[in-house]
Amino acid sequence: MDRKVTLEMIQEARDALQGVTELTPIVSSTRLGKNLYIKSENLQKTGSFKIRGAFNKIRKLSPEEAAKGVIACSAGNHAQGVALSATRLGIKSVICMPEGAPLLKVEATRSYGAEVVLVPGVYDDAAAEAARLSKEKGYTFAHPFNDPYVIAGQGTIGLEILDQVPDVEQVVVPIGGGGLISGVAVAIKSMRPNVKVIGVQSSAVPSMFISHRVGAVTTVKDAPTIADGIHVLTPGDLTFSLVEQFVDEIVTVSEDEIAAAIVGLMEGPKTVAEGAGATSVAAYLFDKIDTSLKTVAIVSGGNVDITTLSRIITKGMQKTGRIAQITTKLQDRAGNLAQLLACVSETGANVLDIDHKREDAKTEVSSCVVTMTLETIGAEHVQKIKAELQNKGYQLLF
Amino acid sequence: MDRKVTLEMIQEARDALQGVTELTPIVSSTRLGKNLYIKSENLQKTGSFKIRGAFNKIRKLSPEEAAKGVIACSAGNHAQGVALSATRLGIKSVICMPEGAPLLKVEATRSYGAEVVLVPGVYDDAAAEAARLSKEKGYTFAHPFNDPYVIAGQGTIGLEILDQVPDVEQVVVPIGGGGLISGVAVAIKSMRPNVKVIGVQSSAVPSMFISHRVGAVTTVKDAPTIADGIHVLTPGDLTFSLVEQFVDEIVTVSEDEIAAAIVGLMEGPKTVAEGAGATSVAAYLFDKIDTSLKTVAIVSGGNVDITTLSRIITKGMQKTGRIAQITTKLQDRAGNLAQLLACVSETGANVLDIDHKREDAKTEVSSCVVTMTLETIGAEHVQKIKAELQNKGYQLLF
Repeated sequence: MDRKVTLEMIQEARDALQGVTELTPIVSSTRLGKNLYIKSENLQKTGSFKIRGAFNKIRKLSPEEAAKGVIACSAGNHAQGVALSATRLGIKSVICMPEGAPLLKVEATRSYGAEVVLVPGVYDDAAAEAARLSKEKGYTFAHPFNDPYVIAGQGTIGLEILDQVPDVEQVVVPIGGGGLISGVAVAIKSMRPNVKVIGVQSSAVPSMFISHRVGAVTTVKDAPTIADGIHVLTPGDLTFSLVEQFVDEIVTVSEDEIAAAIVGLMEGPKTVAEGAGATSVAAYLFDKIDTSLKTVAIVSGGNVDITTLSRIITKGMQKTGRIAQITTKLQDRAGNLAQLLACVSETGANVLDIDHKREDAKTEVSSCVVTMTLETIGAEHVQKIKAELQNKGYQLLF
Repeated sequence: MDRKVTLEMIQEARDALQGVTELTPIVSSTRLGKNLYIKSENLQKTGSFKIRGAFNKIRKLSPEEAAKGVIACSAGNHAQGVALSATRLGIKSVICMPEGAPLLKVEATRSYGAEVVLVPGVYDDAAAEAARLSKEKGYTFAHPFNDPYVIAGQGTIGLEILDQVPDVEQVVVPIGGGGLISGVAVAIKSMRPNVKVIGVQSSAVPSMFISHRVGAVTTVKDAPTIADGIHVLTPGDLTFSLVEQFVDEIVTVSEDEIAAAIVGLMEGPKTVAEGAGATSVAAYLFDKIDTSLKTVAIVSGGNVDITTLSRIITKGMQKTGRIAQITTKLQDRAGNLAQLLACVSETGANVLDIDHKREDAKTEVSSCVVTMTLETIGAEHVQKIKAELQNKGYQLLF
């Protein structure tokens, strides 16, 4: 297989995607930043950009390959992209997922027409099973990122951005395996070499960031991240070489910054992003990049598990000082808690939750530990409340 | 003042709003319903439709009135609509708010250029102060709904819907004071009398619903609702008479149904709606209306307080059986809790939270009360878990 990705391949992919993918809107929000424009791939079919690359790959199968079908391993957006693309093209698709995959994602993938194989074990076991089935049954394996046609499909986003925001100066792109940024960078640098292309990773799993520093494909150790869509420990070799050639810079954002960006996207442009999708906006909001440039941030997907979303909201609000937790010690006497609360209410904070514990291994017998969750206005307000409580003689525990 | 609202007034308003308001997108989501289309007024400037009516009112002021300025009383979307409209027209605006109004809403209103007057007391006190200031200073009072120009401005949404979805059969509209539905109904019934116009209220505060039943403007008693944007106890007389003339039917939705619609809008079209805005979608999702008709639901706003959003998510997930709380009693002996959890995990449910209390006024000394919060797949799954626990001899408390 030819390993080149060219502008012509991306332009051809764009024509092929007409009527299959959406031209997703560019949205601005003065609330988030005056130079920030969002490319809303969270509003793409299947809720992420992945369908672009998957469709472009699958449409290129030979008649013999198409007759046998495709296989992929994913519990996320790639699974849905492959499933819907194959169904649209009248081709059979099989998706291997680890047995513990969220049932709702399994259902979504089935609803797009795929056969889902639940494999006991973790992701690697599912990947091994996909490889085995591919060999045994002759299914073509659809790699999530390290494939020229997949990369060319994702690159169509770069062409759309240049059409939609002709005076763009900088494009910010989440990086997992590197398929999205490779395609976007080839498109943009081929057409407008002066436009900067910046990659973003979570600092929890910075595989491309480290590989770029080291100058070679490098595997990082595993860590939890709310950006599960870019949770990739080893970049592809093809994507790595394209990043080295075409990307200006890679930055990282913290988990808290990602959470704050998710909250900002809900409050400003009223849109729901998944963790991976919000990393690009986090890079802008927390000044990891030059915010004086007219910037398009690709919000790559919106498939955030709703159960975890409320936890993320809490995290995001803590990061921006909109929720604060303060723990202090009280002598266990009538009236002391009332006094503490009066003091808090004078600062304008609103009490959301109180945890008042008498028994605590860390405290003396006569005292108790009170943890208050407060609704606050921002980081300065939280500092003021803490100072006020300390002034009044309360000892803040953490 | 002439109390008529005509199609011509709405058409004229539409021309005047060019370049001021957005033509908000129509969004479909197969996940929510095959005949459901959403008119996204949550993506309107200021985050709600209110700017349409406010701008249309304020542009009609005489030069003398304009020189003096406008005043309004609101802690919500109307405040922001009036503030931004007045600023755009170079006119002074004063907004009275009750002192307890959320600081972030105060800040948002100020950021649009208004002078905010915080009035001690509740909403009625702020309204009285607005009336007093209007008299004293000669400010024109901008009513949030009971005004022909405000109604004509909101009616522009009806014209847009007919353009954007030419084969629409039914339009569903949230009702608070009735300004939005009055304008939309006049527009739609004047142009296409066969298109049904349905109003929706929260069953907690069903003032227009009851007024329609009674056949006269009626005040309902106050109750809490998550749909604060339509929390109006008495409809306007003008809006009431227009509703009687032009609206086909009014339905109500429960608070839980509104919460479930907010969650559905986040999961499907990835969009953030406030409670009031989601009522129209709730009416569709919970079969209060004929879902076989091609339906446009107006999502009227997206300004939901992010602090309460995570609570709403929890409520919405409970309603659809995606989170369940189960409380049971255990003999306080080693191993009993482990046994209970093993039984739960066999049903495929995921434990989010456990509350295990030894001291409880309602239980015997030797037993304890366990409340589990579980992540589940749907209402059937919850029923299965409960049945399974009862089979194994656990007594479910509530």
